[in-house]
Amino acid sequence: MKNKTVSSIGEFGLIEIIKHKFAKLNYNKNVVAGIGDDCFCFKAGKNTICITKDMLIESVHFKKDWITAKDLGQKAIEVNVSDIAAMGNVAPAYAFIGLGIPADTPKKFITDLANGFKAACNKYKMTVAGGDTVKADKITISVTVVGLTKNKIVKRSEAKQGDLIGVTNTFGDAGAGIALLYKHGIKYKYSQEERSLIAKQNTPNARLNEAHKIAKYLTSLTDASDGLYISIGLLTKNSNIGADIYTDRVPLSEDIKKVFREANRCLNFALFGGEDYELVFTVPKSKAKIVQKLVPQVTYIGEINSSKKVRYFHNGKEQKIKYLGFKHF
Amino acid sequence: MKNKTVSSIGEFGLIEIIKHKFAKLNYNKNVVAGIGDDCFCFKAGKNTICITKDMLIESVHFKKDWITAKDLGQKAIEVNVSDIAAMGNVAPAYAFIGLGIPADTPKKFITDLANGFKAACNKYKMTVAGGDTVKADKITISVTVVGLTKNKIVKRSEAKQGDLIGVTNTFGDAGAGIALLYKHGIKYKYSQEERSLIAKQNTPNARLNEAHKIAKYLTSLTDASDGLYISIGLLTKNSNIGADIYTDRVPLSEDIKKVFREANRCLNFALFGGEDYELVFTVPKSKAKIVQKLVPQVTYIGEINSSKKVRYFHNGKEQKIKYLGFKHF
Repeated sequence: MKNKTVSSIGEFGLIEIIKHKFAKLNYNKNVVAGIGDDCFCFKAGKNTICITKDMLIESVHFKKDWITAKDLGQKAIEVNVSDIAAMGNVAPAYAFIGLGIPADTPKKFITDLANGFKAACNKYKMTVAGGDTVKADKITISVTVVGLTKNKIVKRSEAKQGDLIGVTNTFGDAGAGIALLYKHGIKYKYSQEERSLIAKQNTPNARLNEAHKIAKYLTSLTDASDGLYISIGLLTKNSNIGADIYTDRVPLSEDIKKVFREANRCLNFALFGGEDYELVFTVPKSKAKIVQKLVPQVTYIGEINSSKKVRYFHNGKEQKIKYLGFKHF
Repeated sequence: MKNKTVSSIGEFGLIEIIKHKFAKLNYNKNVVAGIGDDCFCFKAGKNTICITKDMLIESVHFKKDWITAKDLGQKAIEVNVSDIAAMGNVAPAYAFIGLGIPADTPKKFITDLANGFKAACNKYKMTVAGGDTVKADKITISVTVVGLTKNKIVKRSEAKQGDLIGVTNTFGDAGAGIALLYKHGIKYKYSQEERSLIAKQNTPNARLNEAHKIAKYLTSLTDASDGLYISIGLLTKNSNIGADIYTDRVPLSEDIKKVFREANRCLNFALFGGEDYELVFTVPKSKAKIVQKLVPQVTYIGEINSSKKVRYFHNGKEQKIKYLGFKHF
């Protein structure tokens, strides 16, 4: 009898096991968002404390040749701040950095990495609260960011029928950037547009200011770390509701259109590429205009329906969309 | 010209680089303990929030054959709770579990590990707040625990001249246990006493109740994760003060004395073995009796002096002690 392994049950199977074990374990009235949201959030007096944690492992999440140590340090902070932004008007306050480092790592790599952490923490005026340094076979970066707010947080679970679905900026560049690196490596002579796609992969910017401006109008919010398709799936599933998405409205950059040309290829990167770290949210129709005025880079790409299904339309015609994303295991 | 690597600068060199980069970066008046203490602590209204983070990596911190997955899960929580206990009367409240898992990991290992996390979180009535699951070459466990208190925290840095130095329970068993495993492996026919030493390595218990009982009397406090020698070094260095330690008073278990016989070998495990997770603290002489009454397992092993040096005495004679501990890199 063959024993089941993680690779046979898959990443989602694994997350289900963990989720099931810990579902609401010792939850109390102070917990305001938990497993299944971008941050874990609890009340302490008048403050809500939001905590997020992300692990980046060499060869799994990055290749040392494809990103500078400084960019890597900055990115590790940005992706966590993006999770804080995904809770709404929350201020990132403290960062903890856990490092697993192979013994043959050059000292310069460590100082560059630390400079990256520092630059990003300065950008957000965050306190670096230390962490742990251990030996490892692969560079392992485990960042925890703590955010604070006295405002109501915006969860993934309160999208309402009739709400519009909005996104910030464009989608697909980061996924296209990593695809280029997989195809040609780092030493290839890339065009300016291609370099710009790679930069989107390596130097993401959390949409914190945007989240702060519009949070109070939103009914649900997440960040698109695993691609638009997954984000929309999370908002609708957690809100127990469906959506109609108009894929022809998904915003694409001039760069990706120049490099990949065919609309379909660009759209695949937007839906499944991941790592765009843009905001994906729902807003009552009555508030859609003010949100777009506050953040002009907002595009509405669909609306919440009552079907409990997510339907995709392209130029008015329903499309069957199959998940093509990255599989961890 | 040879570039410096982490192995040439050593773990302490690495921690110095990181510490230097982040020293007091954006610290504000709400930060009450930072890098260099057992937890990072900040005020949010009337609450003080204490956060600790530890990373356990397969082959570096544990071997899969030497500890059951359930014990490993429990231990990962206990060592973080031990850091919370090291801040005094603080309640561990929330646990975040980041997992890096190789694809060939048996499903049973994951469920056992999760059961271990769960048992320990239930023991401390902690909420499991989720975390991250990623692919990795080696099992990587990154736990973050959040503690809450309205009490004053006990730092490492406020030991005063004339204070006594106290410890809970006995030292050396956990280090002796891992030494046995290195020597004979897991399948060896161990004596009852040897099995008990191994159990101390694999199933530590954070001294949370003890810390809660005595915290208000203490001037400084830490937990002995890297051995008594390192703990005393941290308390004295952070308090900018010295100490006289009477090694003949260091409490040893009957098990270690039976298995290793020679006093010197036992003492080496106590000073340098690590992983005992006992409390090491300073207390004004006037409070020493009440502390011992509240926690009868307390032994006083020395006192703070004004020399800024740590001196070790054995049966009245000063001893030169050389650091023999575990080196990560």
